[in-house]
Amino acid sequence: MSVPSDIEIAQAAKLRPITDVAKEIGLGPDDLDLYGKYKAKVSLELAERPAKGKLVLVTAINPTAAGEGKTTTSVGLAQAFRKLGKNAVLCIREPSLGPVFGVKGGAAGGGYSQVLPMDDINLHFTGDFHAISSAHALLAAMLDNHLQQGNALNIDPRRITWPRTIDMNDRALRKVVIGLGGPAEGVVREERFVIIPASEVMAILALATSFDDLEQRLGNIIVGSTYGADRKPIYARDLNAQGAMAMLLKDAIRPNLVQTLEGGPAFVHAGPFGNIAHGCNSILATRAGLAVGDIVVTEAGFGSDLGAEKFFDIKCRFGGLKPDAAVLVATIRALKMNGGAKKTELAKEDLDALKKGVVNLEHHIANVRQFGMELVVALNRFHTDTDAEIAMVTEAAKKAGARMALSEVFAKGGEGGIAVANEVLDILAKGGSKFAPIYDAKLPIKQKIDTIVKKVYGGDGAEYSAKAERAIAYLESIGLGETPVCMAKTQYSLSDDATKLGRPTGFKVTVNDVYPVAGAGFIVAQCGEIMTMPGLPKVPAAEKMRVLKDGSITGLF
Amino acid sequence: MSVPSDIEIAQAAKLRPITDVAKEIGLGPDDLDLYGKYKAKVSLELAERPAKGKLVLVTAINPTAAGEGKTTTSVGLAQAFRKLGKNAVLCIREPSLGPVFGVKGGAAGGGYSQVLPMDDINLHFTGDFHAISSAHALLAAMLDNHLQQGNALNIDPRRITWPRTIDMNDRALRKVVIGLGGPAEGVVREERFVIIPASEVMAILALATSFDDLEQRLGNIIVGSTYGADRKPIYARDLNAQGAMAMLLKDAIRPNLVQTLEGGPAFVHAGPFGNIAHGCNSILATRAGLAVGDIVVTEAGFGSDLGAEKFFDIKCRFGGLKPDAAVLVATIRALKMNGGAKKTELAKEDLDALKKGVVNLEHHIANVRQFGMELVVALNRFHTDTDAEIAMVTEAAKKAGARMALSEVFAKGGEGGIAVANEVLDILAKGGSKFAPIYDAKLPIKQKIDTIVKKVYGGDGAEYSAKAERAIAYLESIGLGETPVCMAKTQYSLSDDATKLGRPTGFKVTVNDVYPVAGAGFIVAQCGEIMTMPGLPKVPAAEKMRVLKDGSITGLF
Repeated sequence: MSVPSDIEIAQAAKLRPITDVAKEIGLGPDDLDLYGKYKAKVSLELAERPAKGKLVLVTAINPTAAGEGKTTTSVGLAQAFRKLGKNAVLCIREPSLGPVFGVKGGAAGGGYSQVLPMDDINLHFTGDFHAISSAHALLAAMLDNHLQQGNALNIDPRRITWPRTIDMNDRALRKVVIGLGGPAEGVVREERFVIIPASEVMAILALATSFDDLEQRLGNIIVGSTYGADRKPIYARDLNAQGAMAMLLKDAIRPNLVQTLEGGPAFVHAGPFGNIAHGCNSILATRAGLAVGDIVVTEAGFGSDLGAEKFFDIKCRFGGLKPDAAVLVATIRALKMNGGAKKTELAKEDLDALKKGVVNLEHHIANVRQFGMELVVALNRFHTDTDAEIAMVTEAAKKAGARMALSEVFAKGGEGGIAVANEVLDILAKGGSKFAPIYDAKLPIKQKIDTIVKKVYGGDGAEYSAKAERAIAYLESIGLGETPVCMAKTQYSLSDDATKLGRPTGFKVTVNDVYPVAGAGFIVAQCGEIMTMPGLPKVPAAEKMRVLKDGSITGLF
Repeated sequence: MSVPSDIEIAQAAKLRPITDVAKEIGLGPDDLDLYGKYKAKVSLELAERPAKGKLVLVTAINPTAAGEGKTTTSVGLAQAFRKLGKNAVLCIREPSLGPVFGVKGGAAGGGYSQVLPMDDINLHFTGDFHAISSAHALLAAMLDNHLQQGNALNIDPRRITWPRTIDMNDRALRKVVIGLGGPAEGVVREERFVIIPASEVMAILALATSFDDLEQRLGNIIVGSTYGADRKPIYARDLNAQGAMAMLLKDAIRPNLVQTLEGGPAFVHAGPFGNIAHGCNSILATRAGLAVGDIVVTEAGFGSDLGAEKFFDIKCRFGGLKPDAAVLVATIRALKMNGGAKKTELAKEDLDALKKGVVNLEHHIANVRQFGMELVVALNRFHTDTDAEIAMVTEAAKKAGARMALSEVFAKGGEGGIAVANEVLDILAKGGSKFAPIYDAKLPIKQKIDTIVKKVYGGDGAEYSAKAERAIAYLESIGLGETPVCMAKTQYSLSDDATKLGRPTGFKVTVNDVYPVAGAGFIVAQCGEIMTMPGLPKVPAAEKMRVLKDGSITGLF
């Protein structure tokens, strides 16, 4: 499988003018604002039109170092539908700029299943993340200015929870002290920076359904609490920040239209983290897709325990979305790693390891099915996979109640996704799924967490630190007991222990903190340490990047 | 003079599609990348075409709290030339986002002489400042990562001079400590944030003449120095950061095309500070303007002592530009303040105060003339100005060797600038100016500073703190003795004492520090404290801003 590098494929591609791509889904000049020749923002009104499309979620088994290719499969599947003559639209997240300079380089699919223009999408794109950064920074500046100007709201500086943000892997900003220098230079306090996908403004933008809804959610952000035993929450609206923040997001809120490598329409919009946030592209982009496409392919972060659960219980709930089918991406390499095989030995047939690891797939199938979803396992094929291995996975998938098809979209583009696409079309032809969320948001917080741990993770329930117990009582006391719960835990295991691969049983998940993300409309239950500001490696990928005389880029792989 | 608010005028304006504006100056679809319907970036190649236009600099007397209207006059003058049938192009700076939320609201001209779309230009525009922010942040992250990963370059963390940046008025970030939290979280050190117009990357972008030149300048940035007595400078190129930084600026480097309120072409590009940097729009935008326009109107920050001097000695020197005429903006109100009148009493005729203050105008006329420039004083007229006052200013201007004309562009748009425009046309018809910089860059640093203080400020020379003495010796030792000098001093006085209005004499300027801005290609001589991170006022303007249901903005005045 000799495939050129992602950027080589991307730069060799002949892009269609985005106006042509738009025309194909019925969008004219009035529906678009161009950002160069190959990117556009669509009108917000598009998201208010009635949905006509079927919604297909792409999710995955637990990720491993071997890689699964969820985004690549999503792009390839959208391309495959188009090859079959369907009016398919792709809806995925925007990548963050920071990680581009670290280890991994670009992130917009791979091989012959990418979204283009790959370099722009990975760099500033249409400026959405910068706008989110500005809106976030404005609230931070207004908050510290309030302290500086006399603190009329009686905010306890030790209890400020609103961080600062930057879209860069900048380890040295994880923990800082600000406001030094004397009375004219602010109030001294501890502060932390998070990378922009971890910003609550990102989650809000991804969940907002209109300008008004955006402003209201921004106003609901809790930035900290007052001095005193009652710890009254302080909202962004108490600082009158929500209007100006919404103003800064007036263009960022509009979905971005780009194209797949094969020239099909793709909405790439918003990119919240998949652990401390809900890990999905924006509701507005998905709605826009459903308004103009017959089939909308979308994805959610990490495995089905994190991404799909949040897609179903948070995004679909808030957005009134009814997904019609699901695709579960797996690789034999990753299943073997789940069964204990070493990363260096994945090229060898290993039916023992596969047998031990395939239980992870079985669990994810059961998980997706319990939401009422019909699904296809897309086995992302590598040339090292043997027939015996493929047969074993196929049998396991069928036994667990899923269809299965091979996917080769990385090497073959849409052509390589036709088998999966046909299975999805068959599900849709037979009436699709009977989706329902897994819990009632009105249940007490602990009961919701318990439901997720037992049903989605296959565990025996949750244990709570003293801090988490206090936090839950506090959140219920300030009226946040009836929101969905966003679980923040490791993506590598169904449990909260990254080393427990496969399908662990008999475990409890430890919730060490629970905190409000009240603007977005959920609370986060944190299980373990979650990194919200990455660092750079010893030799950052940035060192090889350059812009050439003609303005083209090299080194962004 | 009852003129509606700036944003009311801006929102009532009927904008031309930017493609139409572009066509008028000979630019077709291949020369442009659209950013929505009313903004575009032009091709870099434009700046390489031969110059055909005449270059007119707009400068001013020392600014006061009464305001002079330099940007407004620049816009109005470009509109006036267009009313006279001339192919005139405006080239001005981009405003910074941070101050928008503080006291002043928007900054893109005023009244009937604005650049549009005013709201976009004041907010994210085409993302240039965000790109600069990212490039700046990348270098900071790579620098601290170098310390974290073993500090092979032997950088002294106490001598790091590269700050962090954010485009927000955020007082609490002026002085911070970063890298707290233990060995995995960076190296603890003092840090400071500057607002983005104070970033060296901004100055570099404004002075770069090609992609290659950009990358080279970025590589030349000095970020600090090594441990040890020799204090070897550490450059951005030592961290291999310049290529990725240039990549992040690949679109930001291209000039932005927008329009004046009367539909004429305007390049609005880059916005370095006028004190610690050179305060002019980009060389590339000015060159692009000269390639497509017959007359290019541009401006420089603050009064002629700061902005015009740097325009002549830094921008024109680096860009190979030969300005043909100058316009010096003055108001009777400001001249009366320079003569000691109180801000509350400027509406009353006060010939005594005016007589005392008009010397400031006389000095600025002499200053501009000594660069070989022919000039027109544009007296920005207020309805409170009396005939006797106007007569006094006219006489003083003529005596000092300048033409004079009244300007009413705020209230009347281009029509109000025709008198000034006609004087400029007469200068051009008579052969224009004989421009030359005021000093030879090869002179020793102190001699250059001395020349500026004596000739440009009218002082008796400079005094140097011990720190400045050491810094000068160090800079000369590392090969930075032969760059232009960028003076950082108060804009309110010709001297370095903000309270000395009018035309002070017998003063010396105290240089308290001198530091390299080696990427931009100059050194800064700092006289007094210069604020590089503003704060928000007690009630920030942000509190009144909102976005309405239709996506339009309110509160951005």
